[in-house]
Amino acid sequence: MAKDKSPRRPRAETPKGFRDYFGADVTERKAMLDTIAEVYHRYGFDPLETSAVETVEALGKYLPDVDRPNEGVFAWQDEDADWLALRYDLTAPLARVAAQYRNDLPSPYRRYAMGPVWRNEKPGPGRFRQFYQCDADTVGAPSVAADAEICAMLSDALEAVGIPRGDYLVRVNNRKVLNGVMEVAGVLNTADPDHMAHERGIVLRAIDKFDRLGDAGVRALLGAGRLDESGDFTTGAGLSDDQADIVMGFMAARRATGAATVARLRELVSGSPLGLEGVVELETIAGLLDAQGYGPDRIEIDPSVVRGLGYYTGPVFEAELTFEILDEKGRKRQFGSVSGGGRYDGLVERFTGQKVPATGVSIGVDRLLAALRAKGRVGGVAPGPVVVTVMDRDRMADYQAMASELRRAGIRAEVYLGNPKQFGNQLKYADKRAAPIAVIRGGDEAARGAVVLKDLVLGARIAAEASVEEWKSQPAQVEVARADLVAAVRRMLGQG
Amino acid sequence: MAKDKSPRRPRAETPKGFRDYFGADVTERKAMLDTIAEVYHRYGFDPLETSAVETVEALGKYLPDVDRPNEGVFAWQDEDADWLALRYDLTAPLARVAAQYRNDLPSPYRRYAMGPVWRNEKPGPGRFRQFYQCDADTVGAPSVAADAEICAMLSDALEAVGIPRGDYLVRVNNRKVLNGVMEVAGVLNTADPDHMAHERGIVLRAIDKFDRLGDAGVRALLGAGRLDESGDFTTGAGLSDDQADIVMGFMAARRATGAATVARLRELVSGSPLGLEGVVELETIAGLLDAQGYGPDRIEIDPSVVRGLGYYTGPVFEAELTFEILDEKGRKRQFGSVSGGGRYDGLVERFTGQKVPATGVSIGVDRLLAALRAKGRVGGVAPGPVVVTVMDRDRMADYQAMASELRRAGIRAEVYLGNPKQFGNQLKYADKRAAPIAVIRGGDEAARGAVVLKDLVLGARIAAEASVEEWKSQPAQVEVARADLVAAVRRMLGQG
Repeated sequence: MAKDKSPRRPRAETPKGFRDYFGADVTERKAMLDTIAEVYHRYGFDPLETSAVETVEALGKYLPDVDRPNEGVFAWQDEDADWLALRYDLTAPLARVAAQYRNDLPSPYRRYAMGPVWRNEKPGPGRFRQFYQCDADTVGAPSVAADAEICAMLSDALEAVGIPRGDYLVRVNNRKVLNGVMEVAGVLNTADPDHMAHERGIVLRAIDKFDRLGDAGVRALLGAGRLDESGDFTTGAGLSDDQADIVMGFMAARRATGAATVARLRELVSGSPLGLEGVVELETIAGLLDAQGYGPDRIEIDPSVVRGLGYYTGPVFEAELTFEILDEKGRKRQFGSVSGGGRYDGLVERFTGQKVPATGVSIGVDRLLAALRAKGRVGGVAPGPVVVTVMDRDRMADYQAMASELRRAGIRAEVYLGNPKQFGNQLKYADKRAAPIAVIRGGDEAARGAVVLKDLVLGARIAAEASVEEWKSQPAQVEVARADLVAAVRRMLGQG
Repeated sequence: MAKDKSPRRPRAETPKGFRDYFGADVTERKAMLDTIAEVYHRYGFDPLETSAVETVEALGKYLPDVDRPNEGVFAWQDEDADWLALRYDLTAPLARVAAQYRNDLPSPYRRYAMGPVWRNEKPGPGRFRQFYQCDADTVGAPSVAADAEICAMLSDALEAVGIPRGDYLVRVNNRKVLNGVMEVAGVLNTADPDHMAHERGIVLRAIDKFDRLGDAGVRALLGAGRLDESGDFTTGAGLSDDQADIVMGFMAARRATGAATVARLRELVSGSPLGLEGVVELETIAGLLDAQGYGPDRIEIDPSVVRGLGYYTGPVFEAELTFEILDEKGRKRQFGSVSGGGRYDGLVERFTGQKVPATGVSIGVDRLLAALRAKGRVGGVAPGPVVVTVMDRDRMADYQAMASELRRAGIRAEVYLGNPKQFGNQLKYADKRAAPIAVIRGGDEAARGAVVLKDLVLGARIAAEASVEEWKSQPAQVEVARADLVAAVRRMLGQG
C-alpha cells in the first residue's frame, strides 16, 4: 500500500491549559513582582532560584507508587531511571534546599522565590497548568515572631503594589487553637494523634468552606453529612450536636477587638494545653504587630481562617481583599483571598529526620494582578514607540539615523520595516503599535532640511470628538527643522 | 519474605545537570536582563512570554519518530495522548506564536523574550540542562535594515550592561556570500539545491571550527578528511585543492576596512548572482550602521563568521568579547562569543506554508554574566541587612519595632530570629549574612533610652589591619540615643 508521504503541517497552538503573555501582560506582572521583591528584600529575605525540575522523590507529595507517577505533576523518567518532574509549588523545592545546604545557609534562613509552577490538572475555564507563585519563607525560626514578621511583610507588600489600607485585611489564626477546640470537643486525643484524624480532616475542610456553605452547610458536614443541590451526598464527620456546637462556637469566636477575640478563644479551649498554647501564640503575634504599628485595620485575629493544606502546624494567615468587584454575571461580590500561608514543621524533616520549624506565605500573583486591574492600578494601553515611517526606500539610512537619535535621547523609537509601498499601511501599523507619534520625511521635507511629526494621540482624539475650533487651533501635524527632531518629539510627548 | 517497611528518606539533591541560584547570583542576572530588556524595549521590541511547555509537534526539531521522542528535549505524553515537551530555545515558540496570532500581531512583529530553556543532554562539567536565553527577533521584515537594527541593538545592549566599546566586536557575515563562494567552487548548484548538500554541511562545520582547527585542519576537512590527535578520523567534504582554495580564500577575505572586505568578496563570488546579492546586502548593512554611527570599532564585516545552525538563510552575526581572561589552567585566552544570530526564513513556514522572513539574536546570559564578573563589573559580596540582635527575649516587640523603623526609612533590616541564648551565635549569624551593622540593646541600654550600633564592616577591617591609632580613633561600636537610631545607622552606612 502506498503511504501518503506529504508532510502534515504542525498545529500552531498553545498547549491546552497554557497561556502566552504579550506586552503589558508581561511588564505589569514583572513590575508587580519587582515591587514585592523589594519589600521582601528590605525585610532581609534573600532570593533563591531553584530549577523548574526536581526529582519526583524530592517533591515528595507524589511518590512513585504507580508505574508513571504523574498524578498532579508533569513527570517523566530520566535516562538513568530517575523520575523527574516540574515543581508544583515553591515550598517543596525550598524544603529540599534547606536540607541540602543546611551547613552553608544562615540559620534562620529567610528566602523569597518567584517563578512559574506547574500542575498536571485537566485544563478548564480559569484553570491553568502553569502559573506564577511568589513566596517568602523563614526556615529555622521557632518563634512566632517569624510568623508576625511574615504578616507585617505581607501587609507592606500589598500596600506597595497599590492595594490601599482599608482595601485588604490579613487575617490570622492558629491551628493549635483549632486543635484545642477539637480536643475539648473530644475529636482529638493528643496522646493518640491518629485517633479520629479522618474526622478532623472533614472538620477542617468543612470550616474552610464556611464562606460558601454557610452555617447550616458546615453544621451538616460536622454531623451526619450534607446533601447538596445536585443531590450528591458528602459524608460528615459524625459529630454529636454538642460537639458540633463547640466547633461552631470557635468559628463564631471573632469579637470586635483582638483582645476580646483572644479572651473568647481562651474560654473555648479551656482545659486543652495545646489550645492554650495556640491562644498565647496569637496574643504574642498580635502584640508584636501592634508594637510595629500594624493594628486591626490591617491585621486581625480571625478564628474562621483555617487554610486547606494539611501540613500547617501553628499560625495560619490569609490576605483578603475587602473591596467589591462585579463578577462575570455583573453581581457584586467580595474579591476574596490573594495570599495565604502558615507555619509548617514537617517538610524539611522528610529529608533529614530532624524537625525544622518553618513559616511562610505565598502570594497568588495572577489574582493580585487581576485585583490591581479591577482597581485601575495597572493596565490601560502601554505607550508604543515613535514610528519613523519610510517614504523613500533609498533613504533608509536617514530614517534609521533619526530613530537612533531618538533612542539615544531615551525615547522609544523604531523604523517601519514592512513593505513601505502603501503609506496607509504604515499608519495602520503605527496605530496597532499604539505609537504616540509618526515621523514622516519625504523628498520635499528632506530637501528643505525638515521633518513632519504627526501626533497620533491628538489625531485620534480630534478624529473622534474635536470641534472645528479645536481642529484649527491644534493641528495634529507639524513640520519642524530636522535638527530639532528630538526636542520637538519631546514636546509632543509632553516631556518638553 | 518480610519486606523492610521503614520509610526511606528522599535524597535532598539538585537533579543532575540542574543548578540552584542564591542571593546575588539571582539579582545580578536579573539586573543584567532588566538592562538588556530596557535596550530592546527602546528599539520598539515588545515582551513575549510563552509557557515553558510546548507540544512536541510545534517544537518541530524533534518529531515523534520514536516511541518516546525525548531525544534532546524533556518530553512526556499527556493524558490526551499529545506529546508535550519543555522548550529547548525561544525561537521555536516564537515561530509558533507568529503563526498562531498572525492576524492579530503587528507586522513586522518585533519581540523580545527572556527565560529558561531546557536541554535533555547528558550532564557534564559546565554543561547544564536548564539555562537562560535572552532573545530579540523581528518577524515579517524582509529588508536587511532589520538585520542592521539587530546588530546595532546588540552593540547597545553589550555597552549598557557594562562591556565598554573596544572590549567587544559584533561580526557580520552573510550565508548568501558563502553559498555564492560554494557556487563558484562548484559545490552548489542553485537549480538543484539538494545536490552536494551533505558536502556543504561539512564545509559549513569546517569553517565554523576555524578558531580551533586552524588553516591546516579546515583544509583537511574540506578535502579527504582529518585525523585528530586521538586517532579519530573525520570524513571530509572531498573538495579538490582548487575548490578548497576558493573556500579558504573566502575565510581569508577580511581586509582592513569594510569597503575593502566587500570589494574582495565581490571578486570571490563573481559569476554567482546569489553571492553578489549577499555582498550587496552586506554593503547595505554596513552603510545603514555607519549612518547611525556604528563604525568598525563596534560592528565589522568578517567572512569567517558562519554560525553552526543550518536554518540561517542570509545575514549571520556574532558578538565576541575581545579581552583576554585566564582560563582554568591560568593561560590567557580570548573570552570569545557571547551572542549570535541571523536571518531565518523557514521557521514560520512550517506551520502556515508561507515563507515569513525573520531575523534575530540570542544572548548567552550565563557567559555574558561570567564576562562581567571577569571584568569586575558585577559581583563581590552583596551587602546584607542590618541585624537587630536579641538580648532579651521578652523585649522582642522592641526589637521588631526598631527593625520596622529602619525598613520604613528604606534600610534593609531584620531581627535575629534564631535561639537568642548565645550572643556569639547572633554575631556569627550577622557575619554570615554580610550584615553591615548589628544593633544591640540590652536592659541597661533600654533603661537609659539608648541603643548600641556595632559597625561590622569597620570591625572586620580593624580586626584585620588597623594600627593602634586607628583603633583608638575609630571605634567600631557606638552608643546613640534610641530616638537617633535611623539617623545613626544612616551615618554608619555612609548615607548620612
